[in-house]
Amino acid sequence: MDFTRSGVSRFPDRDLGVPRYRCEVGVPLAEQKELGHNRWHPDIPPLHELGPGDEVILEAPGYDDYQLKDVDDEQDIRDFDLTRTHPIAGPVKVDGAEPGDLLVVDVLDVQPLSGIGYSNILPGMGGPLASWFPRGYKTVWDLHGLFATSRQIPGVEIPAISHPGVIGVAPSHDLLRVWNEREDPFIDQGLAAPRSTATSTAVLRTLEGAEWERVAATAARTVPPRENGGNLDIKNLSRGSRVYFPVFVEGALFSTGDFHFSEGDGEITWNAIEMDGIGWFRFNVIKGGMARYGIRTPMLRPSPVDPNLGTRYLSFSGLSARGGDQKYLDATAAAVDAVEQAIEYLGKFGYTPEQAYTIISVAPCEMHVGGIVDIPNAAVTLKVPLDIFDKDILPS
Amino acid sequence: MDFTRSGVSRFPDRDLGVPRYRCEVGVPLAEQKELGHNRWHPDIPPLHELGPGDEVILEAPGYDDYQLKDVDDEQDIRDFDLTRTHPIAGPVKVDGAEPGDLLVVDVLDVQPLSGIGYSNILPGMGGPLASWFPRGYKTVWDLHGLFATSRQIPGVEIPAISHPGVIGVAPSHDLLRVWNEREDPFIDQGLAAPRSTATSTAVLRTLEGAEWERVAATAARTVPPRENGGNLDIKNLSRGSRVYFPVFVEGALFSTGDFHFSEGDGEITWNAIEMDGIGWFRFNVIKGGMARYGIRTPMLRPSPVDPNLGTRYLSFSGLSARGGDQKYLDATAAAVDAVEQAIEYLGKFGYTPEQAYTIISVAPCEMHVGGIVDIPNAAVTLKVPLDIFDKDILPS
Amino acid sequence: MDFTRSGVSRFPDRDLGVPRYRCEVGVPLAEQKELGHNRWHPDIPPLHELGPGDEVILEAPGYDDYQLKDVDDEQDIRDFDLTRTHPIAGPVKVDGAEPGDLLVVDVLDVQPLSGIGYSNILPGMGGPLASWFPRGYKTVWDLHGLFATSRQIPGVEIPAISHPGVIGVAPSHDLLRVWNEREDPFIDQGLAAPRSTATSTAVLRTLEGAEWERVAATAARTVPPRENGGNLDIKNLSRGSRVYFPVFVEGALFSTGDFHFSEGDGEITWNAIEMDGIGWFRFNVIKGGMARYGIRTPMLRPSPVDPNLGTRYLSFSGLSARGGDQKYLDATAAAVDAVEQAIEYLGKFGYTPEQAYTIISVAPCEMHVGGIVDIPNAAVTLKVPLDIFDKDILPS
Amino acid sequence: MDFTRSGVSRFPDRDLGVPRYRCEVGVPLAEQKELGHNRWHPDIPPLHELGPGDEVILEAPGYDDYQLKDVDDEQDIRDFDLTRTHPIAGPVKVDGAEPGDLLVVDVLDVQPLSGIGYSNILPGMGGPLASWFPRGYKTVWDLHGLFATSRQIPGVEIPAISHPGVIGVAPSHDLLRVWNEREDPFIDQGLAAPRSTATSTAVLRTLEGAEWERVAATAARTVPPRENGGNLDIKNLSRGSRVYFPVFVEGALFSTGDFHFSEGDGEITWNAIEMDGIGWFRFNVIKGGMARYGIRTPMLRPSPVDPNLGTRYLSFSGLSARGGDQKYLDATAAAVDAVEQAIEYLGKFGYTPEQAYTIISVAPCEMHVGGIVDIPNAAVTLKVPLDIFDKDILPS
Repeated sequence: MDFTRSGVSRFPDRDLGVPRYRCEVGVPLAEQKELGHNRWHPDIPPLHELGPGDEVILEAPGYDDYQLKDVDDEQDIRDFDLTRTHPIAGPVKVDGAEPGDLLVVDVLDVQPLSGIGYSNILPGMGGPLASWFPRGYKTVWDLHGLFATSRQIPGVEIPAISHPGVIGVAPSHDLLRVWNEREDPFIDQGLAAPRSTATSTAVLRTLEGAEWERVAATAARTVPPRENGGNLDIKNLSRGSRVYFPVFVEGALFSTGDFHFSEGDGEITWNAIEMDGIGWFRFNVIKGGMARYGIRTPMLRPSPVDPNLGTRYLSFSGLSARGGDQKYLDATAAAVDAVEQAIEYLGKFGYTPEQAYTIISVAPCEMHVGGIVDIPNAAVTLKVPLDIFDKDILPS
Repeated sequence: MDFTRSGVSRFPDRDLGVPRYRCEVGVPLAEQKELGHNRWHPDIPPLHELGPGDEVILEAPGYDDYQLKDVDDEQDIRDFDLTRTHPIAGPVKVDGAEPGDLLVVDVLDVQPLSGIGYSNILPGMGGPLASWFPRGYKTVWDLHGLFATSRQIPGVEIPAISHPGVIGVAPSHDLLRVWNEREDPFIDQGLAAPRSTATSTAVLRTLEGAEWERVAATAARTVPPRENGGNLDIKNLSRGSRVYFPVFVEGALFSTGDFHFSEGDGEITWNAIEMDGIGWFRFNVIKGGMARYGIRTPMLRPSPVDPNLGTRYLSFSGLSARGGDQKYLDATAAAVDAVEQAIEYLGKFGYTPEQAYTIISVAPCEMHVGGIVDIPNAAVTLKVPLDIFDKDILPS
Repeated sequence: MDFTRSGVSRFPDRDLGVPRYRCEVGVPLAEQKELGHNRWHPDIPPLHELGPGDEVILEAPGYDDYQLKDVDDEQDIRDFDLTRTHPIAGPVKVDGAEPGDLLVVDVLDVQPLSGIGYSNILPGMGGPLASWFPRGYKTVWDLHGLFATSRQIPGVEIPAISHPGVIGVAPSHDLLRVWNEREDPFIDQGLAAPRSTATSTAVLRTLEGAEWERVAATAARTVPPRENGGNLDIKNLSRGSRVYFPVFVEGALFSTGDFHFSEGDGEITWNAIEMDGIGWFRFNVIKGGMARYGIRTPMLRPSPVDPNLGTRYLSFSGLSARGGDQKYLDATAAAVDAVEQAIEYLGKFGYTPEQAYTIISVAPCEMHVGGIVDIPNAAVTLKVPLDIFDKDILPS
Repeated sequence: MDFTRSGVSRFPDRDLGVPRYRCEVGVPLAEQKELGHNRWHPDIPPLHELGPGDEVILEAPGYDDYQLKDVDDEQDIRDFDLTRTHPIAGPVKVDGAEPGDLLVVDVLDVQPLSGIGYSNILPGMGGPLASWFPRGYKTVWDLHGLFATSRQIPGVEIPAISHPGVIGVAPSHDLLRVWNEREDPFIDQGLAAPRSTATSTAVLRTLEGAEWERVAATAARTVPPRENGGNLDIKNLSRGSRVYFPVFVEGALFSTGDFHFSEGDGEITWNAIEMDGIGWFRFNVIKGGMARYGIRTPMLRPSPVDPNLGTRYLSFSGLSARGGDQKYLDATAAAVDAVEQAIEYLGKFGYTPEQAYTIISVAPCEMHVGGIVDIPNAAVTLKVPLDIFDKDILPS
């Protein structure tokens, strides 16, 4: 795709005229702060203002804020500063959007910016799986048009289902307060990303001085998905999809970033094929839509063009019981069980645990909730696509 | 499908010769106990013995064991005896299958038997949602070839993805002991189906007297899915799919039943469109497959002919946080949140909560694990198919 | 599928009550002529009458009228009497349907009757390819639920997209006259199926004597598709699809038969996997629909459940020029060119020309018109599904 | 997509290093003739040379060579000089490719260049339909990421299946002679594009003077598809597909252009959504592949990411007989019949014949050869996607 038409007066009689906000490749967000922010807060000043039916093109660094390097040395994943995630572009203020409305966002396109992708296992990250690979693992991807390949994982070629990992609207002050109150206890237990220690790396667009301090002190980290969307990590929120966001503040204040070239359901390593990217969006508003449709979180219509892999999956079953260990209807445990079996299985075909774990996290795998009612066991199925491998991985 | 060719000597020169075990419609399993059993135990005598490459056709009552009636009165769901679920046909002994092998089962066909389906909300059932509809709700479906319609839920037509809800192999004595040990504490807490009170309704094929008593005392209920498969409730384990089961006993001892005309991921009400049915299966063995492939639970290749609904879904996002309530990476809670929003949404289009809840449980909905690593929130997406409704349910 | 519920009063409180007309397996249509006919004519007396919204189940012999035998000897294909094709069930009279309306037919189900399929190359048949295999070739298929396999073509397993090959409504007397006038010259040239020599084998339901003679003399053969539908041979007119037929006579007079287990676009050998079968249909009427929608021939909405083979095809390009031979925008010639190359290609993987030709005709191949405007060449692509083969047929 | 990484030394340690040949937007090929050519001939000097496994990015003007203007005035389509089509980029010489080999081309990406698309009905063009719209009709498309919209056809939004319309390898001198001999009689009858009058506009890369005159005199026009590929107009030859070309000359000499944003099977108006574009290709060679696989024309593996529209089509049936007019197994006539009915049908929903005809030609319609053996009638089905319309176009 070439966006150069925008702003270029090549055809004097007409100009598509889509505004585009550029990200300078390799430059951390803090140094191009006109572009965006890395915390959620209603008081971050808008980057752009537009009306219903209008479009905008937004670029953003990857989730790593250009901390990762395309070198084999893994010092970067050991030094990784998590508090710099996620650098997102925006906010875009949509005229006429008011609290209680739905903001309709058409994801018209998502494309790579620099053409490099990263899928790292960061030491100590990954929720319930954090302990699996304490030393971490680094994967660098070449993005060749529709496909990604990596020198770290030979024999695998992954088709794009590119999407923004983070996409959302600003919370209201009230909603922000609710978030902080419910998450603070988890921060205290080390189970959520701390806000306090993260203040120094907060980028809040053009805010400075006292205003920056005030906002940074209460702004929400971008790690968890919440009612505003945010780090939804929905792999099928891809080019061509439509999202309906609840609106919590005047103008909705839409922001996005954390672009993914491809991701599996669950994003189990905490990484997709992460990339700096370009997103193209169109906005509309449904007045009073939250009450009219009873929506509290974003709602999605998938795109017509995600990979159609037909029947070409191998599906693993995970349970919330294993050996003598029994958990009660715990779908998270069942998901982890399926992932473990898939890692073991792929190992039989020559993939190291780190490679297999990465594949499961970044390829277009599907992870379905099989059952959460058949007491006491929950079941989750993990479908691994067969055609990303250059050899046959079916049992024989 | 017509199976009459089997056993009929119409073409004297050749006979497909697939054995077929018939279920007498309307007759409880206890009265046709040649057919099968309703507990898992390695000592239940085989119904049939065959070799690799062979096929068999098995019929079975629905999960309700013909307790449900096609009448509007709801006394049947109030009187429902859960200990009679699931009446399953078998076991089929596969020559040459030994512990450590994989049993390869091709699901060649699944079809309705009597042509009636049930999708009830049983009072007090439904795992985390058990309290939602204490009075229960009854839905009866007419199965017209590929489609199901119900007088209780007008304007909805559901395409078949027919599959056996329960499909599995016998546990070894050791595995059975592990199951009982890990589940007993949950039974004590009322969180799992009690074995002890269920003894009287145990059907164990032809076992009688002391032998029946011995086996019934330790046999496992069929409610939860386990390492042997069992109540997997995988909606895409449909006609045309292939399943790889770990083998725990000599001959594998395969059984199946609890046929579903259609089901959504999660089977959230604890009911699919339940039916008595006919299944057609082909068997093969991969020697030493458990160790060779690192498999502990069943593995699946989906069928090439499930409904291809393309992009025609509306997807709801569930989170493990809601208002001030915060749960830690709890995918089950996130699933419940998505279900609640979908019920509320469908209510705006005229469906009662009971109807909406039933639709979500029985239509080919997809429930994906969006994320279980973005601390502290898990996210689950629930995709509801648009084309089952006779009106447009998109926001406008 | 089991249709035994119909007409069986098992549940005294309710009966689905779908009438079913049975075909006696192995008995030619002439001996069970209550069932149907094998010519198109408006004066054939109805088999059944029903109203809008009603359903009926119709069985019919295969297109061969039980001439083919499940033996390896090929005498049957040499003795084949083409004038007995196609034995179809009906007509069904739909109350309220009048000339100018559209008859809406839902194909609720299509299933095999006896479980045997045939895909023969009849000596001298096959339109532009009639000369390729003058001795013919016989293939017999076992229908195992969703899949067909044949002892003549080992290593191939074909998933069902079952459909009626012949499905249509009666022509008016005027339309019948138009057909005869435009086809007679081709009959004279030997390019269409002769009506005159075929009179003696005409089956016209219950007609006898002078009435039979009058109708047989002008009735149309069922071979070509026409404005009334008839031998449409549309592979995706499968279970779950909806067809809109123009209505030419009072009551529409719907008939069907020539059931196919599976077929490729083009049905290039003149045979699908042909079978005797069972069809289940629901009828509705759109008053004045022909003029309202400008329809002269049947219109179709495909089913949601045909095989979804994703990207798993190998596609051959056919042109209307080959070597020094140049035809002008001739899509038929381009189709033949693609078929020839596919036969040659499959030969490299061990399939004889007869086997390859049969596979292309009966597997779910797609044959697309690539271009008919790029003077002087037409182009047609033939997509052969990869997953029907038990080996990899991609180039390497 | 952003290709700026290529040739840019941003990451000093590694450079994807894909060479890219740029097309200057708005400048006719004759003025940037380093880039390519608009005739097929083996003696056109290569633009680029590479080895197996290598990639290249090629840009090219649209098929109109920048004759069309984004203005409402239609003078441009009346003045259109057809002899300037198609300006294609190349040739690329692949080391090691020799006559008799197969050239394997991976279409890694196809994207718009300037972001404008055209779908004109050129006066007098369109093969069998040339007489339908003698005055022509002009449609201009805005390409918004995945979707195209046009001010001339409101209420329609078309998803991309972008592909090169022209893609091929050079003919040998012998093959070129065969082409000219078989096509010359059609030129004489006015049924093919004349070579002689077209000489003056021939662009042959850097050739000049006597060499230009020699080559131009015998070079083949690019209009028809031929054994070398060329103007294949296969809509599914899209980003992510793999093509196998027969090789006729040393180095294969690959060229491409005539990019399409979207196209329907048949490209019935002679126009897709035509655009200037960017293609990204990877090359490999199968030695001796033509004989090994019996291939005479290009063979294709479709991409995993074309639109998956599921069942959402309305399908029209075309026959080679209409009223009293009867053609013998003429699939071209049947295709035209289906197109006529679809135009009439869409007219009932408010689309003018010109709009409807354009939609059928450029939307992802499928045109299947239904039957070419049921004497005397050929049948073709035309499937029109429902979801490109902003209203429901089903009959009701």
